Amino acid sequence: MTSATTHHTISAQQHAVEEDLVDRVLQSFANCEDPRLKQVMESLVTHLHDFIRDVRLTEEEWNYAIEFLTQVGHITDDKRQEFVLLSDTLGASMQTIAVNNEAYENATEATVFGPFFVDDAPEVELGGDIAGGAQGQPAWVEGTVKDTDGNPIPNARIEVWECDEDGLYDVQYADQRMAGRAYLHTDANGEYRFWGLTPVPYPIPHDGPVGNMLQAVGRSPVRCAHLHFMVTAPGLRTLVTHIFVEGDPQLEAGDSVFGVKDSLIKKFEEQEPGTPTPDGRDLGDQTWARTRFDIVLAPGA
Amino acid sequence: MTSATTHHTISAQQHAVEEDLVDRVLQSFANCEDPRLKQVMESLVTHLHDFIRDVRLTEEEWNYAIEFLTQVGHITDDKRQEFVLLSDTLGASMQTIAVNNEAYENATEATVFGPFFVDDAPEVELGGDIAGGAQGQPAWVEGTVKDTDGNPIPNARIEVWECDEDGLYDVQYADQRMAGRAYLHTDANGEYRFWGLTPVPYPIPHDGPVGNMLQAVGRSPVRCAHLHFMVTAPGLRTLVTHIFVEGDPQLEAGDSVFGVKDSLIKKFEEQEPGTPTPDGRDLGDQTWARTRFDIVLAPGA
Repeated sequence: MTSATTHHTISAQQHAVEEDLVDRVLQSFANCEDPRLKQVMESLVTHLHDFIRDVRLTEEEWNYAIEFLTQVGHITDDKRQEFVLLSDTLGASMQTIAVNNEAYENATEATVFGPFFVDDAPEVELGGDIAGGAQGQPAWVEGTVKDTDGNPIPNARIEVWECDEDGLYDVQYADQRMAGRAYLHTDANGEYRFWGLTPVPYPIPHDGPVGNMLQAVGRSPVRCAHLHFMVTAPGLRTLVTHIFVEGDPQLEAGDSVFGVKDSLIKKFEEQEPGTPTPDGRDLGDQTWARTRFDIVLAPGA
Repeated sequence: MTSATTHHTISAQQHAVEEDLVDRVLQSFANCEDPRLKQVMESLVTHLHDFIRDVRLTEEEWNYAIEFLTQVGHITDDKRQEFVLLSDTLGASMQTIAVNNEAYENATEATVFGPFFVDDAPEVELGGDIAGGAQGQPAWVEGTVKDTDGNPIPNARIEVWECDEDGLYDVQYADQRMAGRAYLHTDANGEYRFWGLTPVPYPIPHDGPVGNMLQAVGRSPVRCAHLHFMVTAPGLRTLVTHIFVEGDPQLEAGDSVFGVKDSLIKKFEEQEPGTPTPDGRDLGDQTWARTRFDIVLAPGA
């Protein structure tokens, strides 16, 4: 969609009035001493004006937009970030991830960070349980961390976090619990393993203006089931990603924040009750699942 | 600035990843039952993603944008609308005015409404004083209201409002005063006249995030001196506009919200103390000014 194709119904005089205004706004940044800030503001203004001109935004719609943004601002606090939800649901967060994590050979793809990471998760041993009391189907997760040449990366740090079977992260409960999150390190062979929970789909918070927007446009707030990873190792590009669950019906319906990439969909093989576990853990009459996620880190800082 | 010219440094593979994401976001609006909302959201997403891709927005910049918008939301309340200031200073308000008020023959041009209009201003008689105690140099304002065929419009309603000599509107004072605003009606010949104040330049509120943005990019928050008009008459397009003051040095420096149009710059002829006034009002040893603003309304609702 370009100006050339969408402005064709207006007069040359009107076109000139609108172009002149854009030029004057761009010119107002002439004295900006930070060249990057100048570039960002000029591009922002160009695209913002193109949007207004392309849709011929009405004054009533402009008023609605001001009121919508005001509501987004007023519901946002230390615990809830509605601007992030807005960015996520418009795909802007995922596009920012995309432009900053260009594909590199066979390196694992990145996806959205999301609002639920916390800094002070506990460490677990290899093979340990990250659930920390969070309820759900136990899932054995294992894999390797390698560089793009296939060299295993010992002592890579892996942060993992996920919601419980009710679709809630620990930080969404009022009781200050810490559950469903931990970090661990790969062994000398670049291998890792831990017990987590089989991920389940859940809705992003949708009782605010972003939820109203989704409803108005006929979209679901539900995210595809996923398990978060952040993997760091010296000299390699930090990887922020998820794995998704093969067969999750939500994959067909679509992820509300556009985080899914085919390469990140993994089979969680469901195990009958009584099936021996990899580490001999006794799960009684529970079903459990196992999956494998081999991680490849691109070179980088 | 189009995608074609600015995405040339990225690989075809990366380009495809980014395009695919845009397509998926656009596709998410497929079930929107309101065709206008669908059109607006699709255009918004297209331009938002083009912006992120054009500038290759960094994750740090994305975080900064979220924090900036959060600050804009948190300073906004019933008395202060920082999102309107943001729209104004990016020229988005003026562009919205532009697309909704296409030039029509010799009709008077529109400009921004601004945040300082109030609904319940007092009525004054023709030739009355709208200052209501606001301090400043008295200015006699007169003119006609006509349609584009030159027919005078009797009984047109004219709302006028302006700041005082300190650059403040009545609503910016804590004492609930009503001053510097009124409405009046044209006479049988479509003529009007009133006493107001010679407008002075003033800064928009700049102690918040929008002020910080203006400072960061080297821009002034000052608006060119102006007097607001809103003119309504049955069967004619409502006109929201200002007149500006010929010779105001701020006209050269630029208006912080891009509201100036050459056709709206009027001479305020300064009068020596003791110069007889048009209505015999005794202004003692004060200087005063006089100006003329002939208004032409386009056809419309």
